[in-house]
Amino acid sequence: MTRTIDWDGKAVVILDQTLLPDEERRVRLDDVEQLAEAIRSLRVRGAPALGVAGALGIALAVRRAQADGAAIGAAADRTAEALAATRPTAVNLRWGIEQARRAVSQGPEAVLAAALTLLEADVRTNRAMAERGADWLESVSHARRRPLRVLTHCNTGALACVEVGTALGVIQVAYERGSVQEVIATETRPLLQGSRLTAWELKRLGIPFRLVADGAAPGLIAGGRVDAVIVGADRIAANGDVANKVGTYALALAAARSHVPFVVVAPESTRDPTTATGLEIPIEERDEREVLSFGGRPVAPEGARALNPAFDVTPADLVTAIITESRVITIDG
Amino acid sequence: MTRTIDWDGKAVVILDQTLLPDEERRVRLDDVEQLAEAIRSLRVRGAPALGVAGALGIALAVRRAQADGAAIGAAADRTAEALAATRPTAVNLRWGIEQARRAVSQGPEAVLAAALTLLEADVRTNRAMAERGADWLESVSHARRRPLRVLTHCNTGALACVEVGTALGVIQVAYERGSVQEVIATETRPLLQGSRLTAWELKRLGIPFRLVADGAAPGLIAGGRVDAVIVGADRIAANGDVANKVGTYALALAAARSHVPFVVVAPESTRDPTTATGLEIPIEERDEREVLSFGGRPVAPEGARALNPAFDVTPADLVTAIITESRVITIDG
Repeated sequence: MTRTIDWDGKAVVILDQTLLPDEERRVRLDDVEQLAEAIRSLRVRGAPALGVAGALGIALAVRRAQADGAAIGAAADRTAEALAATRPTAVNLRWGIEQARRAVSQGPEAVLAAALTLLEADVRTNRAMAERGADWLESVSHARRRPLRVLTHCNTGALACVEVGTALGVIQVAYERGSVQEVIATETRPLLQGSRLTAWELKRLGIPFRLVADGAAPGLIAGGRVDAVIVGADRIAANGDVANKVGTYALALAAARSHVPFVVVAPESTRDPTTATGLEIPIEERDEREVLSFGGRPVAPEGARALNPAFDVTPADLVTAIITESRVITIDG
Repeated sequence: MTRTIDWDGKAVVILDQTLLPDEERRVRLDDVEQLAEAIRSLRVRGAPALGVAGALGIALAVRRAQADGAAIGAAADRTAEALAATRPTAVNLRWGIEQARRAVSQGPEAVLAAALTLLEADVRTNRAMAERGADWLESVSHARRRPLRVLTHCNTGALACVEVGTALGVIQVAYERGSVQEVIATETRPLLQGSRLTAWELKRLGIPFRLVADGAAPGLIAGGRVDAVIVGADRIAANGDVANKVGTYALALAAARSHVPFVVVAPESTRDPTTATGLEIPIEERDEREVLSFGGRPVAPEGARALNPAFDVTPADLVTAIITESRVITIDG
């Protein structure tokens, strides 16, 4: 697969994820406003990809400021604030923005170089994470003497990153090694990242999978049909509490009750030591219409209202292990 | 509201629930085949309504057999088997069928009378249950000194019964008494009974509500935004394990962790003393296409497969109370 997000020399190029699985369309984003819209509407999404998008956004802003003869420091500040506000829960976005901002004093080319360094690092980081996570799954598979049935949520594949996924990257490598038998993927309402994106990736990878409604997953875990739950993360607090796509908490509760491992796969940049616990993580509330309609068609009666939190928080005591590019973190319950 | 299911003197008349909230269309079902199709495709649904539908199905069959000069006992046996197979988890369906069959030896008119007795009894039963459940909620509301924010799943309103709901019947009476502030209703994938049916009923009743994706509910419970979870049931095993619409188990797990009451509202006919525990309850697996498409439009890539269990089992230790028409059952954890 070509990259989910890349730089073509003049602009950011993304694969528009709102059109998948029906259409694979690449979109060029020439300015920060286009990039912000793409982030808000989830044309580009996924914690690691957002880190790269944030950095490239700062690069776009300072290049434009220089071309216009404007102050690049002020442009970087304005852009940093605007981009960070598009997805308040995702810590990687702010991290990517900050990484690029550190180079502002050295000029636009240095900012772009910093952003491109992040982009390349994401590929290396996620490869390392995928290998480490696959080692972990392999040991579980060996202990059970059979390949595993793993359950995952939302999309944590190449589409959520630059080229290699986080949780889905682990599943991919573990499948290649014979440690995974099949994947159960939640559809992930309201925007169906599981049905649209994860299914699209698993199909291309040739990994057997079944989609399930989000509400069905905990019952399948209780029924002994899942050997491990593997998810990504959008922010990990200092105490190990994990903010991830809404619906994750229920999977962790069910896994804990059935003694099924619940594993989080995320780069070190997802860890936020400045946030003490999950209680302090701001939860993005998205447009009610995402819940009130399905594929653009209204499903609820006229005038109905909705709550649409994009994330929930899984307390650290429910997490078996956090796998990053450099280590496996286990939290004593 | 007119009745969800009724008898017009010659045929069963139902409100076709697959068309709601867009259209309120009544459908006449003249024979058992039409009724079986209506049950399978959820034109008529909900544990109590299925009990009445099962009984009326036997009445239709023996009336037809008599008109054709065929043996009514054999017709009742055949129909009982065919109708019970349409929804294997729902114990009320089989219960209604058996209630009507007991009158077969007394002839078709006695069978019809038995079915109509069930229909009238459902209204009385659910009124009693609604009052009892509202008493329970009122005591919680008094203890907290404020009206409650209650969360419910799927549709347990008048649409699931004849004229008065189970869990939603409780909510309705409790709201009238000032014990309920607002309802959070899960959309209930894959068939969106929450968004389509519960929202339609709550809107008509004038009760403030918000819809949420199924995966969002556990996080809202953890976040302190829910004072009580109230659901129906499709079968309650002898030990108190509860089979209900898929997604219920996650709500019970989240409620237990946050010390939020988790209450099941169901008539005594939902209790199945012949099933020892939830492990023995057969779980209906429905068509994969319900998960893979929406409103006839595919949402997953071509060739994708799904698992579609219609129910899950909530272990008795997670249930705070079961409220029936005659008592409040609490299970020592």
